[in-house]
Amino acid sequence: MSKSTTYLNCDMGESYGSWEMGNDPAVMPHIDMANIACGFHAADPIIMNNTIRLAVAHDVKIGAHPSYPDLQGFGRRSIPMSAEEITAMIIYQVGALKALCESHNTEVTYIKPHGALYNDMQTDLTVFEAVVDAVASFELPLMTLAITDNQALLDIADSYNVPLLFEAFADRRYQANGLLAPRSIPDAVIHNRDDLLSQVQQIIRYKKVRTIDGFLIPLEADTICVHGDNEESISMIQAIRTLIKAEEGVE
Amino acid sequence: MSKSTTYLNCDMGESYGSWEMGNDPAVMPHIDMANIACGFHAADPIIMNNTIRLAVAHDVKIGAHPSYPDLQGFGRRSIPMSAEEITAMIIYQVGALKALCESHNTEVTYIKPHGALYNDMQTDLTVFEAVVDAVASFELPLMTLAITDNQALLDIADSYNVPLLFEAFADRRYQANGLLAPRSIPDAVIHNRDDLLSQVQQIIRYKKVRTIDGFLIPLEADTICVHGDNEESISMIQAIRTLIKAEEGVE
Amino acid sequence: MSKSTTYLNCDMGESYGSWEMGNDPAVMPHIDMANIACGFHAADPIIMNNTIRLAVAHDVKIGAHPSYPDLQGFGRRSIPMSAEEITAMIIYQVGALKALCESHNTEVTYIKPHGALYNDMQTDLTVFEAVVDAVASFELPLMTLAITDNQALLDIADSYNVPLLFEAFADRRYQANGLLAPRSIPDAVIHNRDDLLSQVQQIIRYKKVRTIDGFLIPLEADTICVHGDNEESISMIQAIRTLIKAEEGVE
Amino acid sequence: MSKSTTYLNCDMGESYGSWEMGNDPAVMPHIDMANIACGFHAADPIIMNNTIRLAVAHDVKIGAHPSYPDLQGFGRRSIPMSAEEITAMIIYQVGALKALCESHNTEVTYIKPHGALYNDMQTDLTVFEAVVDAVASFELPLMTLAITDNQALLDIADSYNVPLLFEAFADRRYQANGLLAPRSIPDAVIHNRDDLLSQVQQIIRYKKVRTIDGFLIPLEADTICVHGDNEESISMIQAIRTLIKAEEGVE
Repeated sequence: MSKSTTYLNCDMGESYGSWEMGNDPAVMPHIDMANIACGFHAADPIIMNNTIRLAVAHDVKIGAHPSYPDLQGFGRRSIPMSAEEITAMIIYQVGALKALCESHNTEVTYIKPHGALYNDMQTDLTVFEAVVDAVASFELPLMTLAITDNQALLDIADSYNVPLLFEAFADRRYQANGLLAPRSIPDAVIHNRDDLLSQVQQIIRYKKVRTIDGFLIPLEADTICVHGDNEESISMIQAIRTLIKAEEGVE
Repeated sequence: MSKSTTYLNCDMGESYGSWEMGNDPAVMPHIDMANIACGFHAADPIIMNNTIRLAVAHDVKIGAHPSYPDLQGFGRRSIPMSAEEITAMIIYQVGALKALCESHNTEVTYIKPHGALYNDMQTDLTVFEAVVDAVASFELPLMTLAITDNQALLDIADSYNVPLLFEAFADRRYQANGLLAPRSIPDAVIHNRDDLLSQVQQIIRYKKVRTIDGFLIPLEADTICVHGDNEESISMIQAIRTLIKAEEGVE
Repeated sequence: MSKSTTYLNCDMGESYGSWEMGNDPAVMPHIDMANIACGFHAADPIIMNNTIRLAVAHDVKIGAHPSYPDLQGFGRRSIPMSAEEITAMIIYQVGALKALCESHNTEVTYIKPHGALYNDMQTDLTVFEAVVDAVASFELPLMTLAITDNQALLDIADSYNVPLLFEAFADRRYQANGLLAPRSIPDAVIHNRDDLLSQVQQIIRYKKVRTIDGFLIPLEADTICVHGDNEESISMIQAIRTLIKAEEGVE
Repeated sequence: MSKSTTYLNCDMGESYGSWEMGNDPAVMPHIDMANIACGFHAADPIIMNNTIRLAVAHDVKIGAHPSYPDLQGFGRRSIPMSAEEITAMIIYQVGALKALCESHNTEVTYIKPHGALYNDMQTDLTVFEAVVDAVASFELPLMTLAITDNQALLDIADSYNVPLLFEAFADRRYQANGLLAPRSIPDAVIHNRDDLLSQVQQIIRYKKVRTIDGFLIPLEADTICVHGDNEESISMIQAIRTLIKAEEGVE
């Protein structure tokens, strides 16, 4: 995925049945990559269809956003599963989205696990390998957390010939080990607009981020994860985009 | 799907989680086409995986067996859905199975809707078109009931370039219009071994079937649907297979 | 349920997991009866808990709002079920809500089926009897549509000793037979504020309603069903309440 | 729950929709207490109804067998939930079963959590207290594992006035701390008929059990948990029952 700019990715298609979440039509014009829910933590086939159409209309790349099977918990609960179960459930979900994309003459271009599955794969090599195994069968890149010390993850991905797309978070504080500070810690989430933009600038310009403890650690990211739940966050996405373009000298 | 013999197709992969249904390992060696559940009325990704492996091991063609979303009702309840919803949910399910098949280096070769969805498409042209629309996006044939007067269905399928595979039922009585006699009618299901084999012979040899009212109607079938729930039915499948080979002069 | 005024009832607790629907905290102060979802079309145990607490805080009567099992379709799809299945699934849901209420030292005081189940029971006596059978086991009243010709329903309810609470709709047009005009018909829903208040006044003052065809038919209602999805509808609920109090001479 | 004999309890009603599990009609005549699934790991309202009827017919006490919400995993997967969520989901399930029991003029007489929830409450005091909180609202006893050192659990149960029913397992080896040896350990499950009956005899006659390491530890049990999945296990239940009656001098 060669590119001249750092992409913005955002979770999309997170409604379910009659319940709406997020404001996809307002967010889609401002992002580059849409992580589309595949029915296990959110979305149903119609919502997936609508989100695919919206991504195509705004020339946004489509990524599959598979999850543990947990609608009630929105995929935020870690469910104990064997490696084979994890691999199979990811193939199931990505295959479903892929077929819907193909019926719209478009395609899935990357895979980013959701919620608890995303967190588990960062900290449990068995889960990471199960995810990589699934991703390999689609010959797609896997989006994962950009962390300082990721050699073990890189080795596994390499052994399956799976490219990694590293993402940084605009609004989350980092720990010294490069992992996100858990939301339970005070100040783990950045709410202040200037602080947030400053963190993005540091990542883009210097490929570094200041941790919650004040250390400066290296952080190379292909993409920045943003959120678009309300008007304020959509305005923030626009500000981040403007900043990135300025930093990268893109018109 | 050119072939020198009438194939036997059977619903497979109908377990779910810890619950088992059918005896797939005993049935698979005796059939030609496995209609594999896709998670909406039965099966989960692991069960789909296991059923794919078993089909590959016995050189059995794999078909997708999508359903209304209804685990509790085993897909036997007709759920009101719009045409777009039906199309999308079939693409979702078939895409999921297709991706799992591809991870096993095999493929889905046809699509056969399950239960209430199968019945609804035979009697409601809107449902039939929604199904055909989904099938068309995979460029696969659709398995449907071989009935006398099927011009309307043929026209819809033709307009989407979807080939039809016609199936006959070994153990169900037919009505004069070529539809199956509903299970609620006495004698709708053939339990007697000789009567069942006689019906299969009539279909193979004469391309006709005697209706529940005693009429002889034409019936051209590409495949015979069989069931393998217990030892008796598995023995019946073997008898049907022997009969077909004898009729068709296959060794 | 003796009372000096026509009560307002409203569907509540319709969120699910991470998805929110409605604005219960804003609506609850303005209604008299909360129809609380029981987990089959919306709500989970925590949402039920929160809704019970809110009802208790505003001294609002709690009713159980059971549904067909259909989260994805929000209970708006008619699912074919036997009478015994309908009775059992209603007892299951009402029992669940009742136990949660008792853990909050409050109680369920009536039962109102939701969505497709509500519609089905008005038009199918078998469904109605299955509902009544479930309601009878709780010795509670059943809320049902106030219609002109309801003798058949009354007879069934009487035979189970189930009292009926008749409700009228503030924002829906009626047909000559006393049933609601289907939403598919133009003007089936009243959006104009004056028209809506005028219909409520007619029901309260004259116990009549003007049908969509212009006829005046009798309509005796114990309660008026209102909706509280947004600010406008909440303002409407307040206006209806003011009107009722004025009509009934309540301070 | 005063009694002159050690009761046998068994998990029942574990079918779901079209899927059958166990052989309840064959087992029910030989047990004293039926732990009935409440729809979250198995059973639906009709299966609960049928199991209640069967228990009543054989004069077997009914217990509620609530679980984490996990049909696919049969309640064997530990799902992270807050204490309030656990309490609410247990009240929901027990309330549902209780109402169905009352519609059959019978009652729930105890509560035994299922699978992962059962294991979690034995090892996590927060989970145990959340369970006890739910049980307290029904004023029923809680069935829990008879272990040597249970003071912390007893204190919590006492503070909610919840009586405990201690159960021992006929076919599972114990560890020195009184907990069950995990199934992953060799010989954790007793398959030999004589060894199993010998363990039951030791529990009944001496209120002791020999651990997997060869130690003899005290074990006072109100009830023995048995399983009835096949003919062999049903024959085993009968043998255990005969043994208990002989030990206790009951005819």
